[in-house]
Parts: sequence; structure tokens; C-alpha cells
Amino acid sequence: MNQELKPADISRAPIGVFDSGVGGLTVAREIMRQIPNESICYFGDTARVPYGSKSKETVTRFSRQIVRFLKTHQVKTIVVACNTASAYALDELEKETDIPIIGVVKPGAKVAAEVTKNGKIGVIATEATIGSQIYTQYIREINSNATIYGKACPLFVPLVEEGLWQDPVTDEIARRYLTELIDSGIDTLIMGCTHYPLIRSTIGRIIGSDVTLVNPAYETALELKNMLKERGLLNEEPPKLGSNQYQFYVSDAAEKFKQFANSIIKYGILSAKTVNIEDY
Amino acid sequence: MNQELKPADISRAPIGVFDSGVGGLTVAREIMRQIPNESICYFGDTARVPYGSKSKETVTRFSRQIVRFLKTHQVKTIVVACNTASAYALDELEKETDIPIIGVVKPGAKVAAEVTKNGKIGVIATEATIGSQIYTQYIREINSNATIYGKACPLFVPLVEEGLWQDPVTDEIARRYLTELIDSGIDTLIMGCTHYPLIRSTIGRIIGSDVTLVNPAYETALELKNMLKERGLLNEEPPKLGSNQYQFYVSDAAEKFKQFANSIIKYGILSAKTVNIEDY
Repeated sequence: MNQELKPADISRAPIGVFDSGVGGLTVAREIMRQIPNESICYFGDTARVPYGSKSKETVTRFSRQIVRFLKTHQVKTIVVACNTASAYALDELEKETDIPIIGVVKPGAKVAAEVTKNGKIGVIATEATIGSQIYTQYIREINSNATIYGKACPLFVPLVEEGLWQDPVTDEIARRYLTELIDSGIDTLIMGCTHYPLIRSTIGRIIGSDVTLVNPAYETALELKNMLKERGLLNEEPPKLGSNQYQFYVSDAAEKFKQFANSIIKYGILSAKTVNIEDY
Repeated sequence: MNQELKPADISRAPIGVFDSGVGGLTVAREIMRQIPNESICYFGDTARVPYGSKSKETVTRFSRQIVRFLKTHQVKTIVVACNTASAYALDELEKETDIPIIGVVKPGAKVAAEVTKNGKIGVIATEATIGSQIYTQYIREINSNATIYGKACPLFVPLVEEGLWQDPVTDEIARRYLTELIDSGIDTLIMGCTHYPLIRSTIGRIIGSDVTLVNPAYETALELKNMLKERGLLNEEPPKLGSNQYQFYVSDAAEKFKQFANSIIKYGILSAKTVNIEDY
């Protein structure tokens, strides 16, 4: 239990990070880069992936189970590294949980609201995230004059998962999704799904170099660092030699996850363990 | 409980049909066509779809929960209308269940083994179904000289779910998946995933008119009819006017399911109810 730990111990506790599957690894990767002393306990819900086409009730129920699981690992904070879960479940999770929880939506929305010059911001994300209007809501809180153009891109996740990161088919699908955003004259585009940074070069090429791409993974790691610092929770010591700094858990198909993870994260993921998440 | 029903009552009990989501509706549709007196209780696991990329343990656990749910509706038999669940879980389910259960793999394998002239049979399916080698096993039991060429087609399901049934992108992906099957000289191709009959025209055009397409949905409905007849379970009476002949349950997003279902089944699906399947 966190309550039993001394302050110095708490700062050495891992950061819990979760996603519907592998997408959240782009967030974990940024945390590894920006705050390399931190330990991470990652959970990917590979038995029930994807979340982006599912309902608020279901995504919230799944997220609650995962928070309960991560708390058994004495995490000091939780990062909801999934836009859909951040959009649907973060408010509920914050109310119910006694450790700080941050999502990926707010940090991405904040930077987009700040960097736009013409006030026209595009958001590409899952059906669930777009339908929730959460980016619009957060951006307007900061920049009430902004106009937000949301576009659901449901085929991007399977295309990324199939490894078609540089492929004419992904180009063609991206063109279909992005054309109306180009026509609307946006100068800023939020990649509002953790899978999308993996096809950043395709998205960037099609949307054009005049449009600033916002990667919420980067902004989230930055916000996490600031939050930990403010609360005195930042781990100042490098991890002990031989300690298991990065732990990965999934609800299914650990071996496949490990292979995919090793293609995204260059730190060498030694193992991923399977957890029956429905038991939490 | 079935045990308490008289034989005449049992024959009027519904047929349980389940799938990971909407794909099994192609099987339900064939049952409606071929044995129109029968009632159907359909369950689509839309909270945990897809199954095709998940492990045997997970798919079996999910399938067991669904069988328990369907039995609360006093079904007289269960059709596993999902190739992945048939491949991974059918053997276990048959052992554990006191009513007849049939899958979609065996009927499709049987007809393919019979219709091939040159003994070269292609199977297109999910990664899970191809990896299980179950079609190969069943076909060889009937036709030990057959050569089976399996090809996983993971993007077909999302393309179908996105409605790209007639689309240049689906054509391009189909060409990539099917080229090696064409080169291997198959004369028969099993559409080993219940979603695939929805893009039958694309598959048929690309594989060529010399190749016989086998739709396991059709063969399964035929086998179901024969099995019910042999066991005296066929419902000889048309359903009562105003009775709820077709009932649909899902684990998530009932409204979206209903819309999709109505595009596949022309009988008019009045409602779909949401069930928390993890409770079963």
C-alpha cells in the first residue's frame, strides 16, 4: 500500500501506464526519454483491444479494472496512455482514485490551443474520442475562439498494427481522412490516438509542412514530469543496476506484444506477463 | 432447463448463435433462409471483438461465458458462428456442454474437400484460425491427398466493418493477400471468416472465376438443419404471429450493432440488448 511507504520510497515507486494495447507504448517511450530515472509498470489490454469503437460504459469498466490491477503494483501515479480511455473514463477514475492520474488528451489540447496561429485546429482520433468532443471542450477552455475540426480515422489502428507504416494503402486511406481537414485550412493537427505517431511521416507528408503536428505522447510525458516535480514524487536516483525498471503486463498474447513493443521501444523489453484482467 | 421441457417444447426452443461481433450474422442469415421456422438467440461479443488476433486461452474463456449466457435462454443447440472460436474452443465446449454444439469450420472443410478437383485448396481466415491449422486437419481427414494453402487476412475484418465492401483499397489489399494463393494453383477457396462473404464479389473477382468459393455459413446452416432433423429437434411449426423469433444480444454498443445487422439481414432487427458478458 502506498500509505505505508515513506516519501523517499514513494518517489522510487513505478509509474503505472495503461492502454488498450500497444499504442500507449509511444507514451511510455516518451516517459523513458524525458524522465529516464523512472520505473514503469505498463498494462496493455490486448484481450479486449481496440477501445476506440466501444462505448463509454464498457471503456470505463475496463479502465477501472486496470487501475485496480496497477494499484497492486504500488504505482505512485497512473498515466492513461489511451485517448479513448482518457476521453471516456478519466473523470470517473480521478474521482475514485487516491493517487494522481493524468490522461493524454489535456496535454495535447493545451499545446494545440497555444501553437495555433489561425485558430483552426484539426483532431484525428478514434470514433469514440471524436464522438466525445473532449478535445473541443479542452481546447475551448484555453482558446475560446478556436475552431476544431474532428475526424475519426478508424482504419489507422489496424493499418499500424499490420505494420503498414510506409505503404501506398496507408497513403490512400490517409488522403481520404485528411482531405476535408486540409480543405478547412487548419494550421495545427493533433494526433489524438497513441497509434498515430507511428505513421507520423505519412500523416505529415499528406497534411503538408505548413501544418504543425501535435503528439500528445510528448506533451503528456512533459506534464507528467512537471506534476511529479511539483509533488516531490520525481525519482532523483538512477535505477539500481539489475533492477527491473520496465515491467510489461498484458491481458493476452504476451509474446506478440513483446515483439511489437521491441519494434517501438529501443530499450529491449525482456518479458511481458499475461494477467487475467477480468479478475480485478 | 432443457431437461424439464417436453420433446415438442424442445423443438420450439431457439437456436443459440454466437460470434465475436457482427460477422456471425452471415451465418444467422443462412439459418433464417434455410430453416425459416426456427427461432434464434444471437450473441455478438462487441465489447471484446475481434477474436482473430487473440490467444486460444482467451477465446476459450470468452466462449465459455457466452455458452453459459445462451443456456440461460434455454437454447436447444448452439452454433459457434465464428471461425476463430470454432478453431480454438469448439472441442472444449463440446466436452462441457449437454446440448449439441456445431462450429463453422467442419462444414466448410467438408465441402471444400469434396468439391476440389486438383486437390489444392486455399483457406483465407484470421491469424488465429490459420495458425491453428484446423482447416488443414479437417480437410485431410476427408481427403488425405489434399494440399492446403492458408493465408491470414487481418485487414479484411476492419475493412468490412468500415463498410469498404466495394472499394479500390479493399481490391488492393485482396490482391496482396490472394496473389500467392493464385500462384499456387488452387481450384477451391474457403472464406474461413464470417466477415468475408460480405466482400465475396471482391474476393471472387480477384481470385478468378475458375476457383470455387466455399462459404462455410451456407454449409453450416445445412449441417444444422440435418442435425436437428436427425435428433427430432427441427421446429415443424411456423412461429406464432407476433412472437419474438429473432433475439439479439451484444456485450457493447447495441445501437451500432443494430444498424450494421440491418444492413446484412433483411428481416428487420427490431432491437439488440446489451449484456455484461463478464458476469457469466
